[in-house]
Amino acid sequence: MASESGKLWGGRFVGAVDPIMEKFNASIAYDRHLWEVDVQGSKAYSRGLEKAGLLTKAEMDQILHGLDKVAEEWAQGTFKLSPNDEDIHTANERRLKELIGETAGKLHTGRSRNDQVVTDLRLWMRQTCSTLSSLLWELIRTMVDRAEAERDVLFPGYTHLQRAQPIRWSHWILSHAVALTRDSERLLEVRKRINVLPLGSGAIAGNPLSVDRELLRAELNFGAITLNSMDATSERDFVAEFLFWASLCMTHLSRMAEDLILYCTKEFSFVQLSDAYSTGSSLMPQKKNPDSLELIRSKAGRVFGREDKEAVFEVSDTMSAVLQVATGVISTLQIHRENMGQALSPDMLATDLAYYLVRKGMPFRQAHEASGKAVFMAETKGVALNELSLQELQTISPLFSGDVSCVWDYGHSVEQYGALGGTARSSVDWQIHQVRALLQTQQA
Amino acid sequence: MASESGKLWGGRFVGAVDPIMEKFNASIAYDRHLWEVDVQGSKAYSRGLEKAGLLTKAEMDQILHGLDKVAEEWAQGTFKLSPNDEDIHTANERRLKELIGETAGKLHTGRSRNDQVVTDLRLWMRQTCSTLSSLLWELIRTMVDRAEAERDVLFPGYTHLQRAQPIRWSHWILSHAVALTRDSERLLEVRKRINVLPLGSGAIAGNPLSVDRELLRAELNFGAITLNSMDATSERDFVAEFLFWASLCMTHLSRMAEDLILYCTKEFSFVQLSDAYSTGSSLMPQKKNPDSLELIRSKAGRVFGREDKEAVFEVSDTMSAVLQVATGVISTLQIHRENMGQALSPDMLATDLAYYLVRKGMPFRQAHEASGKAVFMAETKGVALNELSLQELQTISPLFSGDVSCVWDYGHSVEQYGALGGTARSSVDWQIHQVRALLQTQQA
Amino acid sequence: MASESGKLWGGRFVGAVDPIMEKFNASIAYDRHLWEVDVQGSKAYSRGLEKAGLLTKAEMDQILHGLDKVAEEWAQGTFKLSPNDEDIHTANERRLKELIGETAGKLHTGRSRNDQVVTDLRLWMRQTCSTLSSLLWELIRTMVDRAEAERDVLFPGYTHLQRAQPIRWSHWILSHAVALTRDSERLLEVRKRINVLPLGSGAIAGNPLSVDRELLRAELNFGAITLNSMDATSERDFVAEFLFWASLCMTHLSRMAEDLILYCTKEFSFVQLSDAYSTGSSLMPQKKNPDSLELIRSKAGRVFGREDKEAVFEVSDTMSAVLQVATGVISTLQIHRENMGQALSPDMLATDLAYYLVRKGMPFRQAHEASGKAVFMAETKGVALNELSLQELQTISPLFSGDVSCVWDYGHSVEQYGALGGTARSSVDWQIHQVRALLQTQQA
Amino acid sequence: MASESGKLWGGRFVGAVDPIMEKFNASIAYDRHLWEVDVQGSKAYSRGLEKAGLLTKAEMDQILHGLDKVAEEWAQGTFKLSPNDEDIHTANERRLKELIGETAGKLHTGRSRNDQVVTDLRLWMRQTCSTLSSLLWELIRTMVDRAEAERDVLFPGYTHLQRAQPIRWSHWILSHAVALTRDSERLLEVRKRINVLPLGSGAIAGNPLSVDRELLRAELNFGAITLNSMDATSERDFVAEFLFWASLCMTHLSRMAEDLILYCTKEFSFVQLSDAYSTGSSLMPQKKNPDSLELIRSKAGRVFGREDKEAVFEVSDTMSAVLQVATGVISTLQIHRENMGQALSPDMLATDLAYYLVRKGMPFRQAHEASGKAVFMAETKGVALNELSLQELQTISPLFSGDVSCVWDYGHSVEQYGALGGTARSSVDWQIHQVRALLQTQQA
Repeated sequence: MASESGKLWGGRFVGAVDPIMEKFNASIAYDRHLWEVDVQGSKAYSRGLEKAGLLTKAEMDQILHGLDKVAEEWAQGTFKLSPNDEDIHTANERRLKELIGETAGKLHTGRSRNDQVVTDLRLWMRQTCSTLSSLLWELIRTMVDRAEAERDVLFPGYTHLQRAQPIRWSHWILSHAVALTRDSERLLEVRKRINVLPLGSGAIAGNPLSVDRELLRAELNFGAITLNSMDATSERDFVAEFLFWASLCMTHLSRMAEDLILYCTKEFSFVQLSDAYSTGSSLMPQKKNPDSLELIRSKAGRVFGREDKEAVFEVSDTMSAVLQVATGVISTLQIHRENMGQALSPDMLATDLAYYLVRKGMPFRQAHEASGKAVFMAETKGVALNELSLQELQTISPLFSGDVSCVWDYGHSVEQYGALGGTARSSVDWQIHQVRALLQTQQA
Repeated sequence: MASESGKLWGGRFVGAVDPIMEKFNASIAYDRHLWEVDVQGSKAYSRGLEKAGLLTKAEMDQILHGLDKVAEEWAQGTFKLSPNDEDIHTANERRLKELIGETAGKLHTGRSRNDQVVTDLRLWMRQTCSTLSSLLWELIRTMVDRAEAERDVLFPGYTHLQRAQPIRWSHWILSHAVALTRDSERLLEVRKRINVLPLGSGAIAGNPLSVDRELLRAELNFGAITLNSMDATSERDFVAEFLFWASLCMTHLSRMAEDLILYCTKEFSFVQLSDAYSTGSSLMPQKKNPDSLELIRSKAGRVFGREDKEAVFEVSDTMSAVLQVATGVISTLQIHRENMGQALSPDMLATDLAYYLVRKGMPFRQAHEASGKAVFMAETKGVALNELSLQELQTISPLFSGDVSCVWDYGHSVEQYGALGGTARSSVDWQIHQVRALLQTQQA
Repeated sequence: MASESGKLWGGRFVGAVDPIMEKFNASIAYDRHLWEVDVQGSKAYSRGLEKAGLLTKAEMDQILHGLDKVAEEWAQGTFKLSPNDEDIHTANERRLKELIGETAGKLHTGRSRNDQVVTDLRLWMRQTCSTLSSLLWELIRTMVDRAEAERDVLFPGYTHLQRAQPIRWSHWILSHAVALTRDSERLLEVRKRINVLPLGSGAIAGNPLSVDRELLRAELNFGAITLNSMDATSERDFVAEFLFWASLCMTHLSRMAEDLILYCTKEFSFVQLSDAYSTGSSLMPQKKNPDSLELIRSKAGRVFGREDKEAVFEVSDTMSAVLQVATGVISTLQIHRENMGQALSPDMLATDLAYYLVRKGMPFRQAHEASGKAVFMAETKGVALNELSLQELQTISPLFSGDVSCVWDYGHSVEQYGALGGTARSSVDWQIHQVRALLQTQQA
Repeated sequence: MASESGKLWGGRFVGAVDPIMEKFNASIAYDRHLWEVDVQGSKAYSRGLEKAGLLTKAEMDQILHGLDKVAEEWAQGTFKLSPNDEDIHTANERRLKELIGETAGKLHTGRSRNDQVVTDLRLWMRQTCSTLSSLLWELIRTMVDRAEAERDVLFPGYTHLQRAQPIRWSHWILSHAVALTRDSERLLEVRKRINVLPLGSGAIAGNPLSVDRELLRAELNFGAITLNSMDATSERDFVAEFLFWASLCMTHLSRMAEDLILYCTKEFSFVQLSDAYSTGSSLMPQKKNPDSLELIRSKAGRVFGREDKEAVFEVSDTMSAVLQVATGVISTLQIHRENMGQALSPDMLATDLAYYLVRKGMPFRQAHEASGKAVFMAETKGVALNELSLQELQTISPLFSGDVSCVWDYGHSVEQYGALGGTARSSVDWQIHQVRALLQTQQA
């Protein structure tokens, strides 16, 4: 009967292995990133085999020497992939065999492909985390330096994109820098969980050849060893954690970019992007588009929801580029202080007007209502809030007196917010100090 | 003041354009897929310009000829990208200018980059949809042919992975084939919405040069033209629809693969995968892993949740490979009829036992309970359900009589399910006919 | 040995059924939405049973009457759920039995829970699709009416949030309305695939009792019947399709809301939201927040990525509210024509300046460059683009002559975009006509 | 002109506030979970106001007393929501005012709604994390106890669902327990970042009334205070982190459930689920479905991809139920030792056969090939791998000798895997010890 003799029902293919299947299965296109750590891991493993008596000293030296040669070829760009190399691990072992002969066949003793893949991936990601930490710290440092230099610039704080209260420009910078410090804290935690040795777990049951995993750990400078061989070869929590870290960090950068895109519009005109981070239009000659910011914003979507090895490589590249571009944008951004100042309007002091009444003893809910009435009165009369006369204010509440004029000073307004975390100069200084102290701790 | 003169606060970069920024922005690495449709679109547009009087006949001919040359270079692999080619569109126009001189600069008249990008993308995806439709039909046809050939093989149907009722093997095949017919129906709908011409929309306001969009539509063989220029250049519904289509189709293939992975286990042993779709283990010599099925299953995750141009290329490749591998798997799969038969057990006929009582007049809820008691009695006595004596059954209900023995025939059981869509032979034949008729309609 | 006698290793629970498990499993909290369609489905099924000879006419009448009583209790709010009702289906059958006795036990003959669940869900969603279609058409109609009434208002079109070209306000409205017509087209397709009868599929193998599925289809007014019983009871493509439809529609509404939020800012001041769709702040008395728009925008996130029955109910409610709020917002929005007009600036005509040169014979790429030089010259001199003298322009290109002054007219600019889909008045009229014609077709 | 006078273009609604809008905006349906922490937060804040001189001691006492009364009403179920209570915060303040009069209006002085919402949410989530930690520890403890008791049971370890190597049943349990220890570690880290006081941040600019945030922190027992007021009121990293934690933990539970569902099938028959965690079928009397496991598996999908307050409540409930059900399942599961033993087959020792040759000096790659030949030879001859004669083996390699018979002992096989993390008894004991030590550290 046809189905049992392998005959086809209209299928496309008969033969040994479907060629589409091979391409489908191969990961060499992206896992070549791992060449260096793969050699590193194999070198450590051959030392473990020697200690366990499975390699002689001479065999080990032969393997170590051969692996160094493989690494050299990669470093010099002379390594030649063969069509049968389905991944970086088979490629390196194939080459090793060409270089040193049959002894190469002893390297995989007691080691499984999973063992090797996950060890390599952890080694590579550990290095990536260190690089990204440095780039992130550089960005935060740039932001804090800028916040310090421009502490005296006031501009509108927005909620729901409506002008809310006057704040310091530095307060806005620091709100984003503080978010990024959480990202750098989290990245250290992710790195800690990446930095655990799985090697010596075999396929599933463990390593049967008395390989000393503590020796492997020390050789590869891991912080700890995995506890269970089945879990060790199959779990990819650290990949999911890294990708989640990236997505949260990108969310923060994306929000900052979103604010800046707005501040760059003709209508806001608070900042101006350096030409180095802008592009033009193929059709409209006058256009100068904030492409760097739009790319940062859009990359956020790219790092969500994937959980494989390929994603790790791609997301690492994205994060690295984004952090550098963000640092460049922030460090070259021009601000238009005058426009910022002109965007402050008296209605943004309506909350202060309420506080004025609170300080005279009125419960806040009533003061809020009274101030709201003043806003309405000014709108109705077509004047600015600070143009209402004392008499007019007094029709709303007899608590208004001559000293109400002090309310209409933006500098005075921000200085009220002296509680820790607020926008008063002292508090902004405290924030700068806190973030710098955090950076020092994290870099320790 | 520093921030306004472009000075840095610790930033990494000063100069004209940040090199990371350029790399960040370039899409040429993946949009070269579009070379052919880009030439096609530009040829049509130059015809539109000629008709509008913006190109002379001679200029048009020069451009058409130059574009053919560009296409030829791509086809022969001799097209050389320059480092400044940020995307396929600039690359082709740059080359055109090298070939024909300044006239090339007239080609972009009234056209925006978005105009061009979205036209190219729609042309490319229209072709992809046609290809994928064919591959999908081929898979469905293979499944239906197989279902027809193996109509007489019975095996257990499962719910919650517990044996539920005897069904035909073909009924299982058809359950997946029917799901795929919905995918092919949806793909035609997606194609219909892809097949709409955006060209002639400019950047945002439209085309100001009296270009005849109906001519462009006819030249490029689109089914309709877009209604609003702002919407036309920015909407990517058709990308989201295509990716959703892919994710739903992959879900179906993934479920089929999941069933087959199970049927391939030693414990089930219902089917055996061809060597062409299996792989071994680097550590365990006896292993033969259903890698093709696992790849199909895992690819499902790859097509979710992305909505960009790059995703379209990647997902198209994935779908194309997956459909071909699935066709190969189905057409070469061996089935183990004996194991399938032996997996049928009398307790799977408990529902039939209840129907036996229903046919004698007992309300179904009571019959269900009575049959449940029989199952419990058999378990308690440690015998198979069909080994209970008539006397024993009669202690549960006096409606049981000698003809109950007819219940214990699997062939008889499946033949009861004659209502349309059921597992009786007549109904399976009807399904085969229906699916074939659907395919014919869709291919028309 | 402990584990085999059911003893616990430190577990929390011993007994018949873990109470948490029961709560965990129950769906009654949300599936009560289905009461009406559940009765409807059961009535049709009892007619099917009668025709198949499994119910007498009298039994059928008794059941039909009982089911009407159940429906009446739900409609009047007097239906009492019992603690053991795990879902709406068991609740209704339990109540039916209380009302008419043992005959109720015949209703489920040959029907499985899945059969019933999926039939109910399709009936309910079919109704929901109709309701949502109406709301969507109402929104589109409101938008088109408004577009027609305000055809003569010009304002800036933006790309990358930078001012790009002058367009009609109606062109903006229509760009969103056109997107919504795709949603209404897709909703009809989704409804078509929902409108397929699964009833008569049993658990997995089909219906063994000669139930006439064509009769069931006609009774419940479905458009077709499902082809395969296994597929019919397990597939939820239509749920995924509905949720995808909702997510795409919400994306469109969300984008429109995003534009309007921006247009509502103090900085843009193009439109003013009705008080009916705004809210205040508990702290800042002057605030008037565009909460309705922010809710529309944020709800987009709520409809993504879920694929269960509960999601269907929640997403339906969300869509219904969002469509009504959006209609309200659009119909009550005030526009500030003066601000819109003042936001148009001469640099937005730089593209037109390039076209001016194109019409004089210059290739577009050169014209784009020449216009770019004019923009740069104006910026350098600190004047508006239209304030450059003819002499100054002629230093850039000798093709400039006195008629260049015609370029500086915004009304003239938009009227150039007369190709179909553009922002010229004739094209906007054509769009209005096309969308209205589409609505008529869809409502047919 | 119509649009500026508020007239409608076909819209549905005219009036003060669209009623749909109100319902749309209200969160009271789900945020009532917060009643207790809302009172707690307000009590602390009134102490802060008193210290800052904004409340007299008497006013503070009045407020504290009133808030206690509010809490009492919630606790006793007598709190009555009014239709205007849009969220829990307005509800509690409204009630407070009814109870103590105008003084209630002083409570919100300098505090914004966001201030209050985020403080309440952090208080509530801190408590939830503690509860979930306890439930998670209880589950891990149950698993470890069981692993300890059943250390001597061997069964097949699978990769790609194909039988791979013999392992201890405890090794499988521990592979899942170890994964869960990472979850409990991560939960502590999430809790640390939740446990930070935002109160005192106002709307955006900070608190202007010299409220002592250190006092608020101490009152509410937070571990630290937020650094920047803008960031504090808007960031929801801790929500995203909690939801990510839940999704990763659910992935682990889901994988364990998936294995157990398989082990429960008739075909595997390794374990039997307690009736307390199983359900039947409405149609098929013999069915006993592993519903608890399927629910655990399916809930994984429910916790992904949402990032709002409502999700936090729902996901917390889900996690709490799932952890308890999982504990119940594990503690009542019966295992079928005999079936487990019978599922071990000689081909699973093919790796050991290769190691046998390795120990005789053959390089692993050659040994792997030799063992593979033996597997093929046995398959061809239709015998089990351990039934090949010594002569037959020696045709493959002369290194085979009489001691090869020692390979065919499953107990001997697992005992080889003595490297840390392996499946040897000593290593399993070490794992049990390590996990218990970890639990002690985490609970400290």
